[in-house]
Amino acid sequence: MSKDPLGPLMAQCRERIEAVLDARLPPADASPERLHAAMRYAVLGSGKRVRPILAYAAAQATGVPWERIDAAAAALELIHASSLVHDDLPALDDDDLRRGQPTCHKAFDDATALLAGDALQTLAFEVLAADEHNPPAARVRMVARLAQAAGAAGMLGGQALDLASEGQQLDLDALKDIHRHKTGALIRAAVAMAAIAAEESAQQPADAADNAQTPAQTAAMDHYAACIGLAFQIQDDLLDVEGDTAVIGKTSGADAAHHKATYPSLLGVEAAHAAAAELVTSALAALHDFGAGADPLRWIAGYIIHRDR
Amino acid sequence: MSKDPLGPLMAQCRERIEAVLDARLPPADASPERLHAAMRYAVLGSGKRVRPILAYAAAQATGVPWERIDAAAAALELIHASSLVHDDLPALDDDDLRRGQPTCHKAFDDATALLAGDALQTLAFEVLAADEHNPPAARVRMVARLAQAAGAAGMLGGQALDLASEGQQLDLDALKDIHRHKTGALIRAAVAMAAIAAEESAQQPADAADNAQTPAQTAAMDHYAACIGLAFQIQDDLLDVEGDTAVIGKTSGADAAHHKATYPSLLGVEAAHAAAAELVTSALAALHDFGAGADPLRWIAGYIIHRDR
Repeated sequence: MSKDPLGPLMAQCRERIEAVLDARLPPADASPERLHAAMRYAVLGSGKRVRPILAYAAAQATGVPWERIDAAAAALELIHASSLVHDDLPALDDDDLRRGQPTCHKAFDDATALLAGDALQTLAFEVLAADEHNPPAARVRMVARLAQAAGAAGMLGGQALDLASEGQQLDLDALKDIHRHKTGALIRAAVAMAAIAAEESAQQPADAADNAQTPAQTAAMDHYAACIGLAFQIQDDLLDVEGDTAVIGKTSGADAAHHKATYPSLLGVEAAHAAAAELVTSALAALHDFGAGADPLRWIAGYIIHRDR
Repeated sequence: MSKDPLGPLMAQCRERIEAVLDARLPPADASPERLHAAMRYAVLGSGKRVRPILAYAAAQATGVPWERIDAAAAALELIHASSLVHDDLPALDDDDLRRGQPTCHKAFDDATALLAGDALQTLAFEVLAADEHNPPAARVRMVARLAQAAGAAGMLGGQALDLASEGQQLDLDALKDIHRHKTGALIRAAVAMAAIAAEESAQQPADAADNAQTPAQTAAMDHYAACIGLAFQIQDDLLDVEGDTAVIGKTSGADAAHHKATYPSLLGVEAAHAAAAELVTSALAALHDFGAGADPLRWIAGYIIHRDR
């Protein structure tokens, strides 16, 4: 514990987002019960919560109180969960297991999973737009930012690029482009939404002293997020090669079995580790001028490449 | 033409929304091309545009200029198109034809259609949140209203109720409940978003004289919308019984073939016509205190039950 003084704070973020998600999801015993149950199944009880934790950590770095980032954190995780539910459907990856549990369409059925994924996306925007802890000016910017990150120019676009690449020989640039969209966009949005909260409160004179987020700080945080987003993906690829199926919660070696281009397959395992480490170094350098408030962001950068699931 | 002086205005709405949608959809020649092409295919070139036209008509009734309702109109149609793309997938209705054309997954593939439906939903919220013709306070209310109408408490909830009712003997109340969610929620949102635009500009003193939308007017418009939403669905059911496949663009008689409960199957054709007419009468009565600005809304009420497709 003494070597990881931030661990408890991170665990607190995680507990907080579980409670926020539980409260925002529709109750399982209200009609339509099966849809609500599928939505709750897809979101609650598991998941690393990387995007919400990142949003809370970025809020800490910018002096934004956590209650102003609850809605953004929840919306990020709802979008992420929605994409996993749809990804796992027979129309896309046709996966039976996710985080060691039956995927949503296996636990329910394809039709319910399709609707649940849609409804999780809708709920994300509702939660964000209706959040009274932020002024409307912050909320509209967050909705637009999240929608861009999730949509055709972001995550969903990355999934489409991934589809188009099937059976193709990918080079490293093409692989980076897929990941920048598929996972990177939402990770950058997590940090960007905290910056928006800071910027919009800085426009209210009373808060100006506390939350003087400058454009340079926002740009530095975005560089940090772009780096750890890519590092996160490289680590995912490495876990697929080196990880233990029981620990990572999905079948290890699946990428190689599907002849998927990955960082280790293109660079080799050693060089992939080095690339991830280099990205983390660059991410940390971007935070150089931030004070101790950015320690949670620094902690996450380390976690990203040292995690085993 | 002399018997339908509003026809040209309605045609103008339709042309306007086509142009707005075309401009907001991502270009077909930008990456990822196939995703963009599928999104454009699902939205452009056909469709009755009932929800956008209703939003423009409601704007006319409340004195809101059309440019303030463009984003809402587009967002409504994007959500509607998204739901049709997903509805037609094998996981749900598994339909090959929509508006006389191959459905999106038939023209492209299941994976692309799934992602395109998701991306259309995302785009709806992005367009609405980023719309600079409305103050942020109006935009956040519109995003929240649209998300509620589209989500588990609205349209998607209605689809889930519909799924749950398969193979069940439905009574009229259960059927109404499905339609109130499945089609009614988005139609009410179309009118509500114009009311929000009027209310939020009324809070700015300069516009107060022009746009004095009262809570009673908003409630009257909502009653109008609830009535015509249900009438619209009854007419859909009637067209399935009485319509011409070539005109309605989908196979007529499909409901009976699938043993689906409908208004004509529960009430008989004559009584279903009478119920639709009664709803239109009630919708028109709700507009009693509105001036000539509400004539487009009155025109739509008539169109709903006299259309042949």
